[in-house]
Amino acid sequence: MMKKEYCGIFGIFGHRDAARLTYLALYALQHRGEESAGIVSFDSRGVRAHKGMGLVGRVFDDKTLSKLRGHMAIGHVRYSTTGSSVLKNAQPFQINHRKGFVAVAHNGNLTNSVDLRNELERNGSILQTTTDSELVVHLLVKSDESYSDAILSSISRLEGAYSFVFMTNDGIFAVRDPRGFRPLCIGRLGDATIVTSETCALDIIQAEYVRDVEPGEILIIDKDGLRTLKQADGAKHSFCIFENIYFARPDSRIFTKSVYLTRKNLGRALAKEHPVDADIVLPIPDSGVYASLGYAEESGIPLEMGFIRNHYVGRTFIQPSQFVRDFRVRVKLNPIKDVLKGKRVVVVEDSIVRGTTSRGRVRALREAGASQIHMRISCPPLISPCYYGIDFSTKKELIASSHTVEDIGKFIGVDSLKYLSLDGMLNSMLLPREEFCTACFTGKYPTRIYKPPSKKSLEKINSNSR
Amino acid sequence: MMKKEYCGIFGIFGHRDAARLTYLALYALQHRGEESAGIVSFDSRGVRAHKGMGLVGRVFDDKTLSKLRGHMAIGHVRYSTTGSSVLKNAQPFQINHRKGFVAVAHNGNLTNSVDLRNELERNGSILQTTTDSELVVHLLVKSDESYSDAILSSISRLEGAYSFVFMTNDGIFAVRDPRGFRPLCIGRLGDATIVTSETCALDIIQAEYVRDVEPGEILIIDKDGLRTLKQADGAKHSFCIFENIYFARPDSRIFTKSVYLTRKNLGRALAKEHPVDADIVLPIPDSGVYASLGYAEESGIPLEMGFIRNHYVGRTFIQPSQFVRDFRVRVKLNPIKDVLKGKRVVVVEDSIVRGTTSRGRVRALREAGASQIHMRISCPPLISPCYYGIDFSTKKELIASSHTVEDIGKFIGVDSLKYLSLDGMLNSMLLPREEFCTACFTGKYPTRIYKPPSKKSLEKINSNSR
Amino acid sequence: MMKKEYCGIFGIFGHRDAARLTYLALYALQHRGEESAGIVSFDSRGVRAHKGMGLVGRVFDDKTLSKLRGHMAIGHVRYSTTGSSVLKNAQPFQINHRKGFVAVAHNGNLTNSVDLRNELERNGSILQTTTDSELVVHLLVKSDESYSDAILSSISRLEGAYSFVFMTNDGIFAVRDPRGFRPLCIGRLGDATIVTSETCALDIIQAEYVRDVEPGEILIIDKDGLRTLKQADGAKHSFCIFENIYFARPDSRIFTKSVYLTRKNLGRALAKEHPVDADIVLPIPDSGVYASLGYAEESGIPLEMGFIRNHYVGRTFIQPSQFVRDFRVRVKLNPIKDVLKGKRVVVVEDSIVRGTTSRGRVRALREAGASQIHMRISCPPLISPCYYGIDFSTKKELIASSHTVEDIGKFIGVDSLKYLSLDGMLNSMLLPREEFCTACFTGKYPTRIYKPPSKKSLEKINSNSR
Amino acid sequence: MMKKEYCGIFGIFGHRDAARLTYLALYALQHRGEESAGIVSFDSRGVRAHKGMGLVGRVFDDKTLSKLRGHMAIGHVRYSTTGSSVLKNAQPFQINHRKGFVAVAHNGNLTNSVDLRNELERNGSILQTTTDSELVVHLLVKSDESYSDAILSSISRLEGAYSFVFMTNDGIFAVRDPRGFRPLCIGRLGDATIVTSETCALDIIQAEYVRDVEPGEILIIDKDGLRTLKQADGAKHSFCIFENIYFARPDSRIFTKSVYLTRKNLGRALAKEHPVDADIVLPIPDSGVYASLGYAEESGIPLEMGFIRNHYVGRTFIQPSQFVRDFRVRVKLNPIKDVLKGKRVVVVEDSIVRGTTSRGRVRALREAGASQIHMRISCPPLISPCYYGIDFSTKKELIASSHTVEDIGKFIGVDSLKYLSLDGMLNSMLLPREEFCTACFTGKYPTRIYKPPSKKSLEKINSNSR
Repeated sequence: MMKKEYCGIFGIFGHRDAARLTYLALYALQHRGEESAGIVSFDSRGVRAHKGMGLVGRVFDDKTLSKLRGHMAIGHVRYSTTGSSVLKNAQPFQINHRKGFVAVAHNGNLTNSVDLRNELERNGSILQTTTDSELVVHLLVKSDESYSDAILSSISRLEGAYSFVFMTNDGIFAVRDPRGFRPLCIGRLGDATIVTSETCALDIIQAEYVRDVEPGEILIIDKDGLRTLKQADGAKHSFCIFENIYFARPDSRIFTKSVYLTRKNLGRALAKEHPVDADIVLPIPDSGVYASLGYAEESGIPLEMGFIRNHYVGRTFIQPSQFVRDFRVRVKLNPIKDVLKGKRVVVVEDSIVRGTTSRGRVRALREAGASQIHMRISCPPLISPCYYGIDFSTKKELIASSHTVEDIGKFIGVDSLKYLSLDGMLNSMLLPREEFCTACFTGKYPTRIYKPPSKKSLEKINSNSR
Repeated sequence: MMKKEYCGIFGIFGHRDAARLTYLALYALQHRGEESAGIVSFDSRGVRAHKGMGLVGRVFDDKTLSKLRGHMAIGHVRYSTTGSSVLKNAQPFQINHRKGFVAVAHNGNLTNSVDLRNELERNGSILQTTTDSELVVHLLVKSDESYSDAILSSISRLEGAYSFVFMTNDGIFAVRDPRGFRPLCIGRLGDATIVTSETCALDIIQAEYVRDVEPGEILIIDKDGLRTLKQADGAKHSFCIFENIYFARPDSRIFTKSVYLTRKNLGRALAKEHPVDADIVLPIPDSGVYASLGYAEESGIPLEMGFIRNHYVGRTFIQPSQFVRDFRVRVKLNPIKDVLKGKRVVVVEDSIVRGTTSRGRVRALREAGASQIHMRISCPPLISPCYYGIDFSTKKELIASSHTVEDIGKFIGVDSLKYLSLDGMLNSMLLPREEFCTACFTGKYPTRIYKPPSKKSLEKINSNSR
Repeated sequence: MMKKEYCGIFGIFGHRDAARLTYLALYALQHRGEESAGIVSFDSRGVRAHKGMGLVGRVFDDKTLSKLRGHMAIGHVRYSTTGSSVLKNAQPFQINHRKGFVAVAHNGNLTNSVDLRNELERNGSILQTTTDSELVVHLLVKSDESYSDAILSSISRLEGAYSFVFMTNDGIFAVRDPRGFRPLCIGRLGDATIVTSETCALDIIQAEYVRDVEPGEILIIDKDGLRTLKQADGAKHSFCIFENIYFARPDSRIFTKSVYLTRKNLGRALAKEHPVDADIVLPIPDSGVYASLGYAEESGIPLEMGFIRNHYVGRTFIQPSQFVRDFRVRVKLNPIKDVLKGKRVVVVEDSIVRGTTSRGRVRALREAGASQIHMRISCPPLISPCYYGIDFSTKKELIASSHTVEDIGKFIGVDSLKYLSLDGMLNSMLLPREEFCTACFTGKYPTRIYKPPSKKSLEKINSNSR
Repeated sequence: MMKKEYCGIFGIFGHRDAARLTYLALYALQHRGEESAGIVSFDSRGVRAHKGMGLVGRVFDDKTLSKLRGHMAIGHVRYSTTGSSVLKNAQPFQINHRKGFVAVAHNGNLTNSVDLRNELERNGSILQTTTDSELVVHLLVKSDESYSDAILSSISRLEGAYSFVFMTNDGIFAVRDPRGFRPLCIGRLGDATIVTSETCALDIIQAEYVRDVEPGEILIIDKDGLRTLKQADGAKHSFCIFENIYFARPDSRIFTKSVYLTRKNLGRALAKEHPVDADIVLPIPDSGVYASLGYAEESGIPLEMGFIRNHYVGRTFIQPSQFVRDFRVRVKLNPIKDVLKGKRVVVVEDSIVRGTTSRGRVRALREAGASQIHMRISCPPLISPCYYGIDFSTKKELIASSHTVEDIGKFIGVDSLKYLSLDGMLNSMLLPREEFCTACFTGKYPTRIYKPPSKKSLEKINSNSR
């Protein structure tokens, strides 16, 4: 599938250390995108930009940060999806034009991008990247209006999921689509105002959470403070439930609610729906820990950290030869025999995509001496791809799209496998159930979906490197 | 202080993939030394060695591993202590000589190294490094005997803490000092025999734990299997208790017993000794988690993972400018307001060295809304340096060496601070209390200690680089 | 001044190793641009591109070359001028568009680029670089015609100096401006056809020289061979005489004539115009060697290679500290005392820009014992900047624009200084004198010149980095 | 063959910028060794060393140089011979010992190193490298005397070719073997005294040449100036004639005489011995230029620089794929058709080793149109390996050791091939003919030669890397 803008965004206005704060915030948002990172800053002397491939801590150093002067800045982290790992797709995307400069950071996925691209090219525009961000900037430049007016008038051309942060000479603009697929919140640090994807980015710089950007809202932050320029009338909301289940950091609030507490709720609901007679609850570190706590509390079965995660995984790449691959499960997670021997174990996970990883872990648990293994998943089976910015594998790669729960359980090798029900999941949310998009679990998409061209065909011409 | 051989060692005999298995094992032992890593392998065509600065995954790649041919290999990881981060101190240390080659990997610290060095230089030896390993090899070479006989006769010259793995044409030799300060265990993988510092290095390659090398034992592994060459008569044991408290991996057995279960025991003892009326038990990830589980179980107070660790810390270096340093606590650990607000919290830690880190965390908890903070430490106050291979700061830097517990509590800013008692700690061990060295908690050293020269004076001449 | 497209270009059609041959050719053209290098290749499966900063040998390796598949390719090397050393200005510049892909490599400088840029931006185009290449591509895309027709119709919009190589699905197009400022020649290698800046790029791949692209000619190379699509009616020619004097490689033919023989001619003319009673003729390696040979032959004074060039200059950067700078002259060139002592020396150089380098060399010759030093320059004084693609320093930095020859001689410290006259130079050419542009020596520009904006203002917004 | 200490050495006493001057000097000596470079400096606060693989300009930067403080320093460059390119063989070799530090830089080759090594190892010494330098340092340390006395007494143990520069607390010692195989000269820069391999290293730092270190002389440079400690009685001299023919820089004096003038003499003698009726003399840049000048002067045939050397060869590695290899001759040297067409050419070279390179060049000249090609070599055929420090290929690889001149000429493809005679060469020298070693041309070695062990066997154990 095409462009997966699986990203984290941040903007700040009114702080002399705007770029350094953006840097820290991107570090907190790193889980939203490990492929590339970028910051654009602005002051009266001009615009500065630095972007690069890789983790935030590698892309920036003290020297580059000290050059990113200015009282406002926007930043972006982007996720790695096969084939698009090229520097020129890194964001923020910025241009210079006789109307002035504009920079943009985006999280989401436009569903009508093919139509927009065709229209622009017919009119003589040259698109250099495959990003939605570039499309939007072309729309702004084609207009005769100022950037500010052009944002108000052009956004209506966009369909799908989008959270944007724009920066121009006038200040920072934040835009969220009317259904609110992707999160976007507002914070304050002294006199500075911030917009960002998750509250963990506010916490790291000790900023205060103010409120969420409303679905359909267009706001500006400038020297006169924050003003709503436009508030779209109330479309039905489609908050991405997968942010709560898996994607967002557990210490964030997403769509105004605590992810940690939501995940404990999911674990409790799972214990009620699918109890089991067992000796210990075993979390898969780190993502399964929070639902495990809820499961353990609700069931009364003690929690044991019987899988130890190797701290160095991810810090250096273990060599991917076949020889090493055979040991991969134990390189990441080592089961403790003295804890597991002869025990009936409930393993709590947050999702199963292909099933192969779970299968390897189950085998390791058996070898460590577990007498029974019951797997519990804190959401329903994933059966449909996402067109709104989460990079699921294609349908083919989602094991639950073509196998029954029973078959999956056999494949993985557990004594029992149970998923939380759709109702169980929705009732665990701390917001009304109708606020959420559940397309990945149901296949019911809240908007029109176009058949997108393959990403590969778009990119094969634009492959610059170095 | 001088040489801190704070290390992990590994040796394997009888496997065609000896070096690759050593590589994986070093990856599991990485926590015992992040400064440098090395592997030496041997087959009939000769010896191959590769050593480098940095993490195991950076020092080795597929290409270097494929060159390390042979059916036996030894490996080493070494800890970074100020001033000695030079490649030539990386181990294994190996030489060629008309008697044949010898390579050695060492964990521990000789207390009579200054005397040995002076004696060797007076007799015309040239020492190129500041390591104990080089000293021992010079002793072996000075002797007229074969390496095998020289090991038996020279070991008696050494005082202090040492676990050695030697490799010569004849096979692999393992040596542990009579008091057994440092761990050393034996494993088996098919026909191959292994010696290594911790059982987690056996787990990663799916080898089976056989037994520990006995204190005072010298053994050889060769084509005829494993044989004890010498077993020193029973000196009193001095197992390093800090391996159990903090240093070893929780999924290892150390001195034959499970670290995980020991740490849970310490947490339970702590709850009994120092109960408190509180709402939640809060572990400091990851090292405080295991004692926390014990504290929560014993006290009945629910465990909450209210501190979220940023997964990317350690994967890239956050820039150490003053600006960023101010945010350092939150870069690593973010307290969740929705979990902590208004709560009385018990924080369980495994040790306090200077106290400054704890102080930052306590401040973060207060700002997140905790109403009371009670800190519990799963060992007694650290008051004395270690001369047996653990790199404690000098006495001056151990806050407990010059401050009362009450003063430390005030400095850190908690409502209460309690340490586990010496008896509480020793009774939580899964071995008899008299088996352990507790010098760092008591100042009572089980052996004679010499005043060592400063490391700096030794090294200033030997600074090669690049 | 603005954009200095001081470059070398190459295109080849009809060879299975098109990219590798382009790589070798760029290696031969390296003297025309050391800043960046790039190759774009094409076959039925698509377009591949690789560009990078630095020398050809660093930008490409076997792996990148093996990916640049296809039977046609174009390549580019670009010169380093302050402030523009950014990857995105590297060429070839290529885009994808619904009309198909187009890539372009350019040597020259458009004199009406500011007007073109303004017009494009007013119509909604976004320009990402400061290169003429991007401007031209926008013109092609704005047109409703096919690329082939658009090239024919758009070229008339361009003013100034340009030699272009375009590549589209249809084949390779070569374009040279009607005055022929920059060279462009045609070669053949088996069935393959080539266009490139200098014949040395043909020699390295053992291709045969066919003819020059005519000034004002637009030609296409495709599967049907080479065809002239358009031949502008005969404008007066303005071949860059500085290519012959200094810029081109001595082993090339430029504008159909041998550079080596031309430079020897210049040396002979110099000997006739400015004879001197001396013991030896001393070339400045390597650029002054060819005129020196002519001077020595004409005058009968023996040639001595009394300045030895250090072969390693350029291979590694000598550290630019003040300390080392003081020795800089001798780092590059060492005068041989045993050759120079007591000798009256004629030093032959090809040009003087600021005079500081010559001054250092003269001092070194004096210290080596030369009794008299007479400097002879094989062209007239440089007094005016070039707007057609040669990066002279601004007028201010050309010493001859504000000092008499006598003053320059005093500054440099020679016993006599003489320049070849304009007539002497033009009569030494192997083509009629009216074929050449001599603006840098006379200030008489053959075309209208606009006052260009500063490069800096254009670039400050577009600074991406990595 | 074993250790080829094909090197350049330098030492300076009494200058506050000792290390920076050493750096510049090594840059001038780079042609004597491209494999590794090192500097050791000393002041009252201690010794500093920096060594690395590769060219001088890569091994050192401003930061490393600024750390190499002190008023005395020694430096070394080392040549790359297959198999020994390891950092630990880089020099200067330095150690610390209770007697104090000693560092040494060496040029030459000991012929009794195997005996010395065996003796040392029998006495318990451990040798870490395969260098002669380490052997000598062990001899100094084994002695009970001070370093100064030990140098005087130990040197007599050495056989073969050696020029040493030692540095200890006491100052700098220079030692040259009694036959004076390798050059070593003395210079002065203000109050500082210098010893180095070639005078070009004096020129670059503008130091004055004083005299050569005498064969058999041991001298010390300290705060009291330069003093001869010992002068061996007059052995017959064996100056390496190949330094004059090929190895030394043309701007150096070697063994007190100008290399440039010697090479011109060789060219003149060649023209007298082997005249030919031809149109042009064609040098092979750069090494053949100086003999060519002599040949042209003597014969009256004009010199033409008809081969143009690509300046970028050596600055970056052209990719060594087979494809590119086919073009290798023209990548380095391009023959100019307009100069060569229809000409009878005399090609002057300084030596032929395997003949393959010459063969490629001759073919290129034919293709460029030369009607006759006569090759003249400015020394006799090379038939025997050197045991005194020049890295000739083994005898097998010297084409002249197994082929007649006629056969070689046919292989290369010339119309005639002539070598300068032994007498012609010796009579061209500016010193009496009996001063020189001519073993490589005659097979008559001036000293006893032992059959050396293969280098490979020595090194296979000591291969550390990274």
